[in-house]
Amino acid sequence: MPQIKLAHGNGGVENNRLIEDIFYKAFDNPILAKSEDAAVIEGGKLAFTTDSFTVTPLFFAGGDIGKLAVCGTCNDLAMMGAKPKYLTCAFIIEEGLDRGELQSIVASMAKELAINGAVIVSGDTKVVPKGSVDRLFINTSGIGEIGYEGISASGIANEDVILVSRDIGCHGATIFAAREGMEMSSTLQSDCISLYPIVQKLIESGIQIKAMRDATRGGLAAVLNEWAKQSSLCIEIQEDKIPIVNEVMGLCELLGFEATALANEGTFVLATHPQDASKALEILQSFNTNASIIGHTSQHYPQRVVLRSAWGTARFLDMPSGELLPRIC
Amino acid sequence: MPQIKLAHGNGGVENNRLIEDIFYKAFDNPILAKSEDAAVIEGGKLAFTTDSFTVTPLFFAGGDIGKLAVCGTCNDLAMMGAKPKYLTCAFIIEEGLDRGELQSIVASMAKELAINGAVIVSGDTKVVPKGSVDRLFINTSGIGEIGYEGISASGIANEDVILVSRDIGCHGATIFAAREGMEMSSTLQSDCISLYPIVQKLIESGIQIKAMRDATRGGLAAVLNEWAKQSSLCIEIQEDKIPIVNEVMGLCELLGFEATALANEGTFVLATHPQDASKALEILQSFNTNASIIGHTSQHYPQRVVLRSAWGTARFLDMPSGELLPRIC
Repeated sequence: MPQIKLAHGNGGVENNRLIEDIFYKAFDNPILAKSEDAAVIEGGKLAFTTDSFTVTPLFFAGGDIGKLAVCGTCNDLAMMGAKPKYLTCAFIIEEGLDRGELQSIVASMAKELAINGAVIVSGDTKVVPKGSVDRLFINTSGIGEIGYEGISASGIANEDVILVSRDIGCHGATIFAAREGMEMSSTLQSDCISLYPIVQKLIESGIQIKAMRDATRGGLAAVLNEWAKQSSLCIEIQEDKIPIVNEVMGLCELLGFEATALANEGTFVLATHPQDASKALEILQSFNTNASIIGHTSQHYPQRVVLRSAWGTARFLDMPSGELLPRIC
Repeated sequence: MPQIKLAHGNGGVENNRLIEDIFYKAFDNPILAKSEDAAVIEGGKLAFTTDSFTVTPLFFAGGDIGKLAVCGTCNDLAMMGAKPKYLTCAFIIEEGLDRGELQSIVASMAKELAINGAVIVSGDTKVVPKGSVDRLFINTSGIGEIGYEGISASGIANEDVILVSRDIGCHGATIFAAREGMEMSSTLQSDCISLYPIVQKLIESGIQIKAMRDATRGGLAAVLNEWAKQSSLCIEIQEDKIPIVNEVMGLCELLGFEATALANEGTFVLATHPQDASKALEILQSFNTNASIIGHTSQHYPQRVVLRSAWGTARFLDMPSGELLPRIC
């Protein structure tokens, strides 16, 4: 019998195929079919999403599983133009977990909820025997109030501008380094943050937001490929405009990773109208100076992503596939 | 350092203490404080809840983890008088899980969603390396539309009547027997069902619904003790009116279990006004002939549950404590 493989959870090709073949087929309905980072429900008023977090180690430079669990779900809501409002949390705890660690994780969650102006309204706690789960998994589900309607990759038009909110790959690089016990530069840390405050500024500025997506599992490459497919456009990226810090670049060169496939937890991609691009960039840079305009849409190669180098060469950037880093989030 | 123990997930004393000490303290807010089976949000219009499912084995007499995951969350909504409407589902899959088993579980979910008239609107799939999780855990979170307002244990009044919707303990007994490889009577199976259709009939009948709660982890004993505490009343139960089938009774006698502490997954407790009790019983019995009026509230021993035997003796029924059956749901 065929088995589920690690690659089925990579946020890339195999992951999407599993979701389409098994879940979409069984659960098919109009809301699910249109669901992107979150589902839009109640006549466009609310967004609803879920995420389970299995990251290892539980604590890492720049965050912990608790901060990640709140950021992850709140960011999915923010990416739909929604203000995070109500969250649920469900803990699956391995017997023997240190109570102090749990308290510290819960404190991180409370801190991050406050940044989002959201509250936990319901929860669930399961404790399972040793060996049934690796230490602690957390699920958060969230409801947000949509403050900007119509955000969808299918609304991306020809010649729209593509921006990234900061340098990419820090979460993936940090988790990998932590797991392998690598001594990295003391400045490398996960990008894990709550994105709603940035999204709020973008909405308030009056710019046209075509699409937003946080580049989690599968990284920037996955988002761009999903958008190219959904919009039926070509996305052309100037490779040298993709911001990557030296520590991440170094790790990628050392280990043969593609920074564009590394996971992020507080970095998002934005598609906007050309006339709004500089205003959008200004807002993004007020939060992180590494924010950058990285490309635009065209009709050259529909449904494909093209990387153009500074030397004039070009190549396709494909949807990531294979076993990327498991338990990254 | 103190550690989390299996007893902290038992649905009883230790579980409640952990939730109060760690989660309620950190996440404190008015909605969470009033949350029972589900939180009431959006000015009383919607109910919102979450549950993670870790049951082992994945398949058991009367259901599987998929059916359980949909019933569990939909039932929590139904218990607040809400019609299940939107669900999210998050799968944590161990590398190597049989794809056919996953498909069969997902098919069970789809079937149960249809019974509730609910849809999956968003999801998440994680695949973790062998040994990081035992086969498959599922989280479902759900939003329901409240069709009967004000259901709360704090609304239970003196002399209200307490009913149970069917015989108790079948889920706990079935899972225990399956796990121990015991050959039980072929008729014993989990009570796992969706409760909304029954709740809908109760609402339509016009009876006063004071409180409803499905007697999952911690069983009937946990629900009655929570209600006694929340209403500051005494709950007096006639022991011989508690419906228990022979197979469950036999297992309890053999192994020293209390049927009142065994988990159920499609059995609920109802508190209603005395004048509505017979009508409520009639409706419950139209779904399961074992439904029964088991007692009433009084002011004899505030916040305590009293079991009265057929011979006139009485004893307190306490909140369950210690290691009950882990991974029952």
